[in-house]
Amino acid sequence: VRPVEDPPVDPDRYPFATTVRVRFAETDAMGVVHHAAYLPYLEEARVDYLDHIGHPYTGIRAEGIDLAVLEVHVKYLAPLRFDDRAEIRLRVGAARGARLVLQYLVRRGDQVVVLATTMHGALDPNGRPVRLPEFLRALDPGKDGA
Amino acid sequence: VRPVEDPPVDPDRYPFATTVRVRFAETDAMGVVHHAAYLPYLEEARVDYLDHIGHPYTGIRAEGIDLAVLEVHVKYLAPLRFDDRAEIRLRVGAARGARLVLQYLVRRGDQVVVLATTMHGALDPNGRPVRLPEFLRALDPGKDGA
Amino acid sequence: VRPVEDPPVDPDRYPFATTVRVRFAETDAMGVVHHAAYLPYLEEARVDYLDHIGHPYTGIRAEGIDLAVLEVHVKYLAPLRFDDRAEIRLRVGAARGARLVLQYLVRRGDQVVVLATTMHGALDPNGRPVRLPEFLRALDPGKDGA
Amino acid sequence: VRPVEDPPVDPDRYPFATTVRVRFAETDAMGVVHHAAYLPYLEEARVDYLDHIGHPYTGIRAEGIDLAVLEVHVKYLAPLRFDDRAEIRLRVGAARGARLVLQYLVRRGDQVVVLATTMHGALDPNGRPVRLPEFLRALDPGKDGA
Repeated sequence: VRPVEDPPVDPDRYPFATTVRVRFAETDAMGVVHHAAYLPYLEEARVDYLDHIGHPYTGIRAEGIDLAVLEVHVKYLAPLRFDDRAEIRLRVGAARGARLVLQYLVRRGDQVVVLATTMHGALDPNGRPVRLPEFLRALDPGKDGA
Repeated sequence: VRPVEDPPVDPDRYPFATTVRVRFAETDAMGVVHHAAYLPYLEEARVDYLDHIGHPYTGIRAEGIDLAVLEVHVKYLAPLRFDDRAEIRLRVGAARGARLVLQYLVRRGDQVVVLATTMHGALDPNGRPVRLPEFLRALDPGKDGA
Repeated sequence: VRPVEDPPVDPDRYPFATTVRVRFAETDAMGVVHHAAYLPYLEEARVDYLDHIGHPYTGIRAEGIDLAVLEVHVKYLAPLRFDDRAEIRLRVGAARGARLVLQYLVRRGDQVVVLATTMHGALDPNGRPVRLPEFLRALDPGKDGA
Repeated sequence: VRPVEDPPVDPDRYPFATTVRVRFAETDAMGVVHHAAYLPYLEEARVDYLDHIGHPYTGIRAEGIDLAVLEVHVKYLAPLRFDDRAEIRLRVGAARGARLVLQYLVRRGDQVVVLATTMHGALDPNGRPVRLPEFLRALDPGKDGA
């Protein structure tokens, strides 16, 4: 995750937001959401985002492209508890060649809960890297100097 | 799960035993193992049992047979906590036609933690029911009046 | 789960419905939702139901009552896949003394996916059985001959 | 994870090793272990390591110290599949003040599967940072110029 900056804490820098509600099954014996449970939250946010931009992940997979997770980086700044509602904001950090970098801001109210980055590689049905679909490459922030 | 008796509490009635150790990720905010986490424990015991009888599940799947879970019934009698070691005992309740019924006794020391039954159906690669492999049908307790 | 009938397949016999959407993390290598992943779905439906009747589970827990899961019984009739939306319908099967029995019908469109029953025991902070709160006992179907 | 180097790929640089075996429940519809499932593997390796050095995590928690996860960084280099056995090697990257950094090398045979770093903070029962126990600070590689 070197080529892109750290995920910003300013919510206005994220064009997309969705929400999750904490399940009891996601808590642990410390009384808070287990750190592994955030990865499915981020995954759900990715799926919602792809829906939002008109390219559902099921459709991408049906065309023979998987967006495999190559790397995750998560900073846990505050805990979530059972039944909490959290907002997950998402932005594209980079989308070039076969690589997609996404950034996430998870908040409960105004409190920052998690900052995260995931890096994905587009793979064909044989597991070989392929170029990202054009609609993803078009989202690269460097495209228009953003 | 009507055709077979309830899982017995007598450990001697189970020919196979394996152990699991509770992960922190499997606990919940009540401080005990979440009830859903027992299903992967039972699954692990099934896989260990199939290894034990010389027919690893990976081999069964490679031959085009899945043992889909059709039904589960779990009674929770005492909790497990983080880092507990539990013994899972397993017996074949029935193995006829396309149906396999397994029974489980989970204990921590002498304490009964869970009694469970799972029913499975053999499916071909198209998801259609097929007869159980012969080595499984041979384990049906009715075979020899057991 | 002897004292109550099997969960009905008629959706009209369930007074409450909520929905879930399948996460990729909930699927397994058979390409369908793993059987253990349905238990958190049912738990989410319970939490939504308690909200719906004006008694959120967080409030019940804050008053020192846990509704521990004593028993689950799940019949898997059809699979769910990634990104499927499913409806979970819920009804109270029994609510007497310290015991609460809930029944669930999970459907994708008109297709029945799962029928399930969960039995719960009300526990005080020391883990001892206590009577169900009055608002739950009032929901027992036997109350008014239903 | 700035203050420490990337996790080394040389297994000899890790003083501790444990093994995990992939459960079916940990796979996903791509046919491989879901990326979130690696975090409980790393957690299990930490718990095994603390046992190994004579300070079980249950004992640390009993003395009122939690080692909360503050940050995780995982690179996925190759997939694991159902029933694979993987070796998880662990080393202490840093152990100073309230911060513990651990590094992990996950391999299947000679193949590198995952490189990971986790950062932990010692917390008292009120969730406030406290110094790491002396036995952990003694493991800091900088102690002896390593």
